[in-house]
Amino acid sequence: MAWKFDSTEQGGRKRICIDMDETIADIATKHLAMFNRDHGTSLSKADFLGRWFYDVIDPEHVERAISYLHTEDFFVDLPVIAGSQRVIEALAEKYEVFIATAAMEFPTSFTAKYQWLQRHFPFLHPRNFVFCGDKSILNADYLIDDMPSHFPRFRGEGILFSAPHNHGVEGYRRVDSWIDVEKIFLAE
Amino acid sequence: MAWKFDSTEQGGRKRICIDMDETIADIATKHLAMFNRDHGTSLSKADFLGRWFYDVIDPEHVERAISYLHTEDFFVDLPVIAGSQRVIEALAEKYEVFIATAAMEFPTSFTAKYQWLQRHFPFLHPRNFVFCGDKSILNADYLIDDMPSHFPRFRGEGILFSAPHNHGVEGYRRVDSWIDVEKIFLAE
Repeated sequence: MAWKFDSTEQGGRKRICIDMDETIADIATKHLAMFNRDHGTSLSKADFLGRWFYDVIDPEHVERAISYLHTEDFFVDLPVIAGSQRVIEALAEKYEVFIATAAMEFPTSFTAKYQWLQRHFPFLHPRNFVFCGDKSILNADYLIDDMPSHFPRFRGEGILFSAPHNHGVEGYRRVDSWIDVEKIFLAE
Repeated sequence: MAWKFDSTEQGGRKRICIDMDETIADIATKHLAMFNRDHGTSLSKADFLGRWFYDVIDPEHVERAISYLHTEDFFVDLPVIAGSQRVIEALAEKYEVFIATAAMEFPTSFTAKYQWLQRHFPFLHPRNFVFCGDKSILNADYLIDDMPSHFPRFRGEGILFSAPHNHGVEGYRRVDSWIDVEKIFLAE
């Protein structure tokens, strides 16, 4: 029943943790479309450069905007961020790859996130999925994430995946796309 | 929306990860009762000393026995293992405490496990819950777990929580109860 591990199977391979929301799953496009539909607005990603979504919209709309993320099916049909499948499949040949998502913030999303990962990243074993909150719990060499708040306590190197909200954040190696990730980790 | 972390709030506190199934949640009693009811047997925990449940029962019954664990409500009403609440609440005063469960083996259990933890361990923040598979992903000083297979690749010290199936396993510090955990970590 329990999965078996060979304690040496990973040899000396480096370990990369990869965030889910806004790094491999495109949250913002759907979230913004729902918000615009319900509020008659025409906000675009460019309106959120360097700012949190919730700091830009009218405070009285924040509660509803957050509620979108707490519906069970929000995560079901999110688009995959361009290039992530191809590059992560290649990374998994050379590195230990884990997907680490702050799912504890959205407990209604567990099943949808698990199914989404299985559907779009079938080459990763579910034992390499991590649903957590505080990402300092991750024992890895690298964490690719759009949220710089996870990096100060992370034991490895945080690599910032560009998103509108982290525009202008300094202090970390930054990747603008999965092509950039490929250049760092898979250049011969 | 995102939880905020103070990167120094935990200071120099040691970190303890605690397994869920058979360490704080009593799986075996319910599982065995279901099995005995459906198969007219009268097996008890003593029949499994040093052996896996699935190595003891008739092979033709294994599939059904496993299926119990994959129902959505199996984990809902599990009893709490004696002393775990009191001792873990005290541990959380002196250590960083995370609950780390191999939930990826039972994706139907996510919600039930989350709710069970919130109900019985309300003093722990959900950001300290980790649903994973391969526990070598945990960045911690100690892992208290009934499954010794997690220990060889774990970066800290594995502490074996006694269960019938791990009877006789050597090579790790062993605790027979939460009183023993208290003695190790909370002795003045």
